[in-house]
Amino acid sequence: MAADWREFGDDTLNAPLRAALECFAAHGYHGTSIRMVADVAGLSVPGLYHHHRSKQELLNKVVGAAMDELLAHTRAAAEDSDGTPAGRFDNIVTALILFHLSRRQHAFVASTEMRSMNPEVRAVHVASRDEEQEMISSAIAEGNESGEFDCPSPVDAARAVSSLCVSIANWYRPGGALDPNDIVAQYLGFCRSIAGRLDDAPAPRG
Amino acid sequence: MAADWREFGDDTLNAPLRAALECFAAHGYHGTSIRMVADVAGLSVPGLYHHHRSKQELLNKVVGAAMDELLAHTRAAAEDSDGTPAGRFDNIVTALILFHLSRRQHAFVASTEMRSMNPEVRAVHVASRDEEQEMISSAIAEGNESGEFDCPSPVDAARAVSSLCVSIANWYRPGGALDPNDIVAQYLGFCRSIAGRLDDAPAPRG
Repeated sequence: MAADWREFGDDTLNAPLRAALECFAAHGYHGTSIRMVADVAGLSVPGLYHHHRSKQELLNKVVGAAMDELLAHTRAAAEDSDGTPAGRFDNIVTALILFHLSRRQHAFVASTEMRSMNPEVRAVHVASRDEEQEMISSAIAEGNESGEFDCPSPVDAARAVSSLCVSIANWYRPGGALDPNDIVAQYLGFCRSIAGRLDDAPAPRG
Repeated sequence: MAADWREFGDDTLNAPLRAALECFAAHGYHGTSIRMVADVAGLSVPGLYHHHRSKQELLNKVVGAAMDELLAHTRAAAEDSDGTPAGRFDNIVTALILFHLSRRQHAFVASTEMRSMNPEVRAVHVASRDEEQEMISSAIAEGNESGEFDCPSPVDAARAVSSLCVSIANWYRPGGALDPNDIVAQYLGFCRSIAGRLDDAPAPRG
């Protein structure tokens, strides 16, 4: 990961995994063949199979790389906060928004192709998603205690916050009318509202 | 449409369209063949082609039926409101939430397979989606005037409200821990927060 959790440069997918990502995003998992992935990657079908045993393994690795990257940035964002629940919430949600601005195809495939995963593969990614949402819900729950939030159901609010950030990947296009920094500020505001962030919250406690 | 915009009974898809919906939801558009749809519908391939000329036409009709149903309920919800922008917002968003609780497969296919539509087909459904979001954004904008809302960007907030309601279809399962009425109340609250609904709004004007 980059030194700054706010930075998302190029992803680290190798050529076959990048080709798989592009095929899954364009045609869906079931609409993608190993031959299509090999063609996009510039490999022979045996050459592709040499590195990746199956289409299911390609999906697992593509989604796994994305979830690992998201979790690494989110954990670093949480650690980098001012120590208050509200500060932690802001950093975690900012990482989530930045990820979905930077990894649109990854997010689309991860959110739409859960249906196509073998149960044991799906369980791994559901656990990652749950860990991400748990970081959000625990920040909100602790913020209820600190008086920074007033949220009757932190778990449900965390799912809504997560869903809203994921949805950015569906419409955002680089170079469009909205500046990424403005989207971060706007969506962080939406997420604070969903989570019941109180405007008259106390100042951060040292 | 049922007399009450809150009521979503069975949808009105015929057997081939229902089969197409189920195949698209399970395998994606590109992972679905006409033969698969015919098998699920209990038809021969020529029998299916007799009614629907192509897989693209099946997708168009399935998504079109869903968008028409959503718009009919939303328009009726808007007309049935108390006449205030805030009342209209509440009814429109309630219809949107109820739709996504009742039409989960339809919503998933409509939101994920825009990529698979021919340009002229996609344009029709984008226009329907825009009309839905425009009803939300105009309620918010008028609510800014009436003092019921304080929202700097009604268009962006309407997109976020719409995205959040669409996301319900991704996780909601009938018979789960959450009661549908509680979900309506909770998500309406989230959407009001996103749109900057003011708690101390004036009483409805006759």
